[in-house]
Amino acid sequence: MAGSSIGNIFRITTWGETHGRGVGVVVDGVPAGLALNEEDIQKYLNRRKPGQSKFVTARKESDLVEIYSGIFEGKTTGTPISLAVMNTNQRSKDYSALMDIYRPGHADYTFDMKYGFRDYRGGGRSSGRETIGRVAAGAIAAKILKEMGIEILTYSKAIGGIGIDMDRFDKEEINNNPFYMPDAQAAKQVEEYASKMIEEMNSIGGVVECRVNGLPAGLGDPVFEKISANLGKAMLSIGATKGFEIGDGFAVADSNGAINNDNFYMDEEGKIAKRTNHSGGTLGGMTDGSELVFRTAFKPTPSIARPQETVNRQKEDTVIEIKGRHDPIIVPRAVVVVEAMAACTILDALLMNMTARLDKIVEFYK
Amino acid sequence: MAGSSIGNIFRITTWGETHGRGVGVVVDGVPAGLALNEEDIQKYLNRRKPGQSKFVTARKESDLVEIYSGIFEGKTTGTPISLAVMNTNQRSKDYSALMDIYRPGHADYTFDMKYGFRDYRGGGRSSGRETIGRVAAGAIAAKILKEMGIEILTYSKAIGGIGIDMDRFDKEEINNNPFYMPDAQAAKQVEEYASKMIEEMNSIGGVVECRVNGLPAGLGDPVFEKISANLGKAMLSIGATKGFEIGDGFAVADSNGAINNDNFYMDEEGKIAKRTNHSGGTLGGMTDGSELVFRTAFKPTPSIARPQETVNRQKEDTVIEIKGRHDPIIVPRAVVVVEAMAACTILDALLMNMTARLDKIVEFYK
Amino acid sequence: MAGSSIGNIFRITTWGETHGRGVGVVVDGVPAGLALNEEDIQKYLNRRKPGQSKFVTARKESDLVEIYSGIFEGKTTGTPISLAVMNTNQRSKDYSALMDIYRPGHADYTFDMKYGFRDYRGGGRSSGRETIGRVAAGAIAAKILKEMGIEILTYSKAIGGIGIDMDRFDKEEINNNPFYMPDAQAAKQVEEYASKMIEEMNSIGGVVECRVNGLPAGLGDPVFEKISANLGKAMLSIGATKGFEIGDGFAVADSNGAINNDNFYMDEEGKIAKRTNHSGGTLGGMTDGSELVFRTAFKPTPSIARPQETVNRQKEDTVIEIKGRHDPIIVPRAVVVVEAMAACTILDALLMNMTARLDKIVEFYK
Amino acid sequence: MAGSSIGNIFRITTWGETHGRGVGVVVDGVPAGLALNEEDIQKYLNRRKPGQSKFVTARKESDLVEIYSGIFEGKTTGTPISLAVMNTNQRSKDYSALMDIYRPGHADYTFDMKYGFRDYRGGGRSSGRETIGRVAAGAIAAKILKEMGIEILTYSKAIGGIGIDMDRFDKEEINNNPFYMPDAQAAKQVEEYASKMIEEMNSIGGVVECRVNGLPAGLGDPVFEKISANLGKAMLSIGATKGFEIGDGFAVADSNGAINNDNFYMDEEGKIAKRTNHSGGTLGGMTDGSELVFRTAFKPTPSIARPQETVNRQKEDTVIEIKGRHDPIIVPRAVVVVEAMAACTILDALLMNMTARLDKIVEFYK
Repeated sequence: MAGSSIGNIFRITTWGETHGRGVGVVVDGVPAGLALNEEDIQKYLNRRKPGQSKFVTARKESDLVEIYSGIFEGKTTGTPISLAVMNTNQRSKDYSALMDIYRPGHADYTFDMKYGFRDYRGGGRSSGRETIGRVAAGAIAAKILKEMGIEILTYSKAIGGIGIDMDRFDKEEINNNPFYMPDAQAAKQVEEYASKMIEEMNSIGGVVECRVNGLPAGLGDPVFEKISANLGKAMLSIGATKGFEIGDGFAVADSNGAINNDNFYMDEEGKIAKRTNHSGGTLGGMTDGSELVFRTAFKPTPSIARPQETVNRQKEDTVIEIKGRHDPIIVPRAVVVVEAMAACTILDALLMNMTARLDKIVEFYK
Repeated sequence: MAGSSIGNIFRITTWGETHGRGVGVVVDGVPAGLALNEEDIQKYLNRRKPGQSKFVTARKESDLVEIYSGIFEGKTTGTPISLAVMNTNQRSKDYSALMDIYRPGHADYTFDMKYGFRDYRGGGRSSGRETIGRVAAGAIAAKILKEMGIEILTYSKAIGGIGIDMDRFDKEEINNNPFYMPDAQAAKQVEEYASKMIEEMNSIGGVVECRVNGLPAGLGDPVFEKISANLGKAMLSIGATKGFEIGDGFAVADSNGAINNDNFYMDEEGKIAKRTNHSGGTLGGMTDGSELVFRTAFKPTPSIARPQETVNRQKEDTVIEIKGRHDPIIVPRAVVVVEAMAACTILDALLMNMTARLDKIVEFYK
Repeated sequence: MAGSSIGNIFRITTWGETHGRGVGVVVDGVPAGLALNEEDIQKYLNRRKPGQSKFVTARKESDLVEIYSGIFEGKTTGTPISLAVMNTNQRSKDYSALMDIYRPGHADYTFDMKYGFRDYRGGGRSSGRETIGRVAAGAIAAKILKEMGIEILTYSKAIGGIGIDMDRFDKEEINNNPFYMPDAQAAKQVEEYASKMIEEMNSIGGVVECRVNGLPAGLGDPVFEKISANLGKAMLSIGATKGFEIGDGFAVADSNGAINNDNFYMDEEGKIAKRTNHSGGTLGGMTDGSELVFRTAFKPTPSIARPQETVNRQKEDTVIEIKGRHDPIIVPRAVVVVEAMAACTILDALLMNMTARLDKIVEFYK
Repeated sequence: MAGSSIGNIFRITTWGETHGRGVGVVVDGVPAGLALNEEDIQKYLNRRKPGQSKFVTARKESDLVEIYSGIFEGKTTGTPISLAVMNTNQRSKDYSALMDIYRPGHADYTFDMKYGFRDYRGGGRSSGRETIGRVAAGAIAAKILKEMGIEILTYSKAIGGIGIDMDRFDKEEINNNPFYMPDAQAAKQVEEYASKMIEEMNSIGGVVECRVNGLPAGLGDPVFEKISANLGKAMLSIGATKGFEIGDGFAVADSNGAINNDNFYMDEEGKIAKRTNHSGGTLGGMTDGSELVFRTAFKPTPSIARPQETVNRQKEDTVIEIKGRHDPIIVPRAVVVVEAMAACTILDALLMNMTARLDKIVEFYK
């Protein structure tokens, strides 16, 4: 079953396993005329490697992206853009220890159940390296959005139960700490807690928040193609995600209508605005012109060094000890992946939305 | 833009506005040979009308479903099944008061922004009646799943901040109270709280939980077509939803790997099982053979009787007072909608999954 | 498998069997703001009933279309338009004679092979009545195209081997004869030949030609979504079609480059034009601004009154005699079906094409 | 607009321009467990380079395919297979002469109209090299079909008006002449005619025929996903195609029902068979178990050396003289492209068809 594509008009198709020849993406439906080079994409990809701290794996990943097609004289041509990050050194490391054993919290068992066998080297297709293709595609989408005045801000909202304090929210701080948190104090606390968890051979989860500004009202569709539904699918398609919420999210369940309804009013510029934004920028599945805000929950890294009870392919109980360095927190690397998937989803909605009104279509073709 | 279809192999396409001629759905990709009649679907649809209590609107909705195609001699033929619930009395009620005004929390404003105008009668396409088509389609999917030994249980997990106590969980109780709660005591509390909120011309939200048992391992796909992602999209495509989580959901963000990883073991029947189910039945986007558990958050009904500040199409500040009876809680009606969308999503994944392995395909065609 | 939808942005989903409750279509992706009523669609549908002559079946088909959704105050709202033609008298005619027998040239055998059984009444889903949904949808597409200055002309090019003489081509004549031929003399010859074939309990085939004028250059896509490929699929999806060609079609195989290349030149209005139109209006899968011309071949009606050798479900040799009146020629009814499918395909390409260039997208959202 | 993918379950996405870094394809939905290596694909690709005669361009195309993903320990894993043929020597040849001029019969003008500019080097995305991705994907599909006992035979039916004589049909001969014709005598005639046309700086077209044996009955769908419609789209999506027909094709227009209907009978093995095969192996859009036969028409190569009248981007009349060697006939290279697209289309139909019957689905999951 073909499950490696997402998007309708702006559609991405990713490929590759962590220990194969490389990973990549074909980005189709990119409008013609965008100035684009490898540097645009590389900058975005580099955000997957925060801080080179002990909280992300130390292994060298050069991750140099190459553009194979779709660009001519520095501009997109409208034809598919093929991007790849090839593995420079194909690691000869012995993964045979993992061949027959099912790591708890990983997809080893489910891969075997679905396909009969699996590429057991480092998670294969389910590795975090699968997100390279997503991020490369997102770099293109984000560049187009920027040309349209749409800005996306993404950061860690909470890690290991330590949340940012909105009173201390500092956009500039995001790139100053290895956790992409907009609150230096919270980042400091996370650092201490994470260090402790590493010592205990444990791992922690967190929440990524994304905010989008500059969107026109009316993006998305009232029924199945709600922008909230498509953002939800995009986020939940990222590995290790367990939840998605928009606006007040699960908190609405405890709220009431008098509070949760965002009252409209005419602002000083004569524009329709909302007093509050409990909705997170969508009403009835369509953007309402206010800030789009959503959050995604990531589970703790399943690869932990302590011994864990499990079973093997031979259906025997056994104990696994996962060797090697693993990120104790997925969240810092996930921030740019969330942003990339948001950019792709929003761009697709922008393109789809051009066909909503007959008068605008007629005008377009005049 | 075509946004009224969902699903790949089992695909549904809904149509209709609340105050139009009727609402309906075309269900395509139904396998041939299923015994099916209108009663099968009507039973499911009737679950949208819980209890006839004061907590759901008193207005008579006969909602009789008709099958227009796709059945011959009592069995599905493999061709599309067209289902409709036609409006018997087309209400002549005057909705002109809503013509120019944007109700807070509703999609009135976003519809106008997208399409230039809207069917302002009772929410038009964004009304709760749009879910009739979903539920009718879900009745078919659920019947097929049942034939395959797959059972879905859906109920209100919490309403207005009052959650069920898992120690008092009683499956039989679900249909005994107007809130579809599996805990009589919690339902009693909700009843009191909801009554108070009605008096205050207010409304409340809640959380619906869904559990699916009997699934084979391996459904879903490792990348964009994760079963969790598709369930998320399906749920977030329901009106008034603001969040989706699977397994421990947002709680994983505060957890750690040693706890969150579900250890595998060989059970007494010689099958691979998990000690816990923090994952909610999926690993790497594919079902792991344990119970699938997910939750969806619904906001409080935006239609409340108290005066609310808002604006009109003429871009003037104004005050709205919404007349007529409205459900103070969306959740009870939403329970069967969640179940229906779950059934459709899971059936589609089951059908897609048949093509994953060459040996099974060769065997199929022998 | 879901096979009853076609189109990406403008997407139609048909349903219904000839002897069921009715037939219909859901048309999704119709831009908002089109003035539309049942009369617009009925006019188009009536073209399926040419001349009430002996060359098309005499049976009364009132075929009154009803609009169930998607229109408000006389205009399309952007939500799906559900259209149905319900059967007023559900025929009680006994079709049991056809229950077990496979009619040569029909889909009886292949339906049984695919689905295990079939609705054997009058062809079920494979009846010509399935095209009602297509034509109803095409009426909407054609009305939009007309608003954009795009005109479609469709007619019988040849029937029973008798082709029109292009020197006698008379557009006005098309609606004057029961064969929709733009050549009165050819129509006369066909009438004689067809009468003879009816007497001999035989049937004849033909070719429908379609010409589209007013198209902008650049519609379609260079690879799989060539406009020629999508028109081909649309035409070949009509029952009884066996061939499709565009421009010079199969004749190009015998031609040479010096003749077949259409030379460009600057016309008197200062526009780029072509000296000839061997290409039929497309180059590299995209429209070139000249007239789009294509043809579709239809086989002779498989239902003929004379005894035919065949087999039954019990796998016995037998002889079939098909009772009742059947059109001896499919072509006249097919003319409007070809036009409808062309309109749907072209409209979809027009909508898709809006997203090809970044500068135009940026301009659109300004 | 995303137009570089085709197929539902078995889906291919091609990328690349002739003078870019390379060309390639991502093949998604390949069932797990197929033994596959680069040699399997290379063999197929090499069929694009018939005979190294003067009838195909002499330029060296090493065209070595590389597999980047989706294979582990020699078998497909069920994840996407990324294939590329990278350009070893990026030609520095000066194409600036073509920058501003529109070659007759090429897509230069339509590209400019759609995208505002184009990669003018050697046709860019519209070059014949785009088919490399198709052929590489087709090699995989064909290998799977072979494992299921399905064989495809493809050859030139006619070139430059010289058709094969079916009485001299010799399957073994196909690979013995540079034209892939199954008739040595016809090939000889073509050779003479083609030589003459080359001298005259002209080019010729032709027809490719494809036959598929071993198909189960019931593949395809009765409405829009007819196997004939999908084959038609697949063939018409190949560059330079102008027509498609199945079975007797356009000849049915001149035939009559008594002849065109294929009578069923019970064969000596007790199987349902047909006396004739005018239908070309499909009835009502589904395979009928007999040989699938279809033809595709290719136009003469538009690149001819003689001076041709045309215009430039500056909207001036001019004359073009195309330098360099060009194949005077597209057909020989197209044979394997037709076969590849047929394999992809048929495999997708086989996979889709697994979900048609409830009893078989239930059986599958037991």
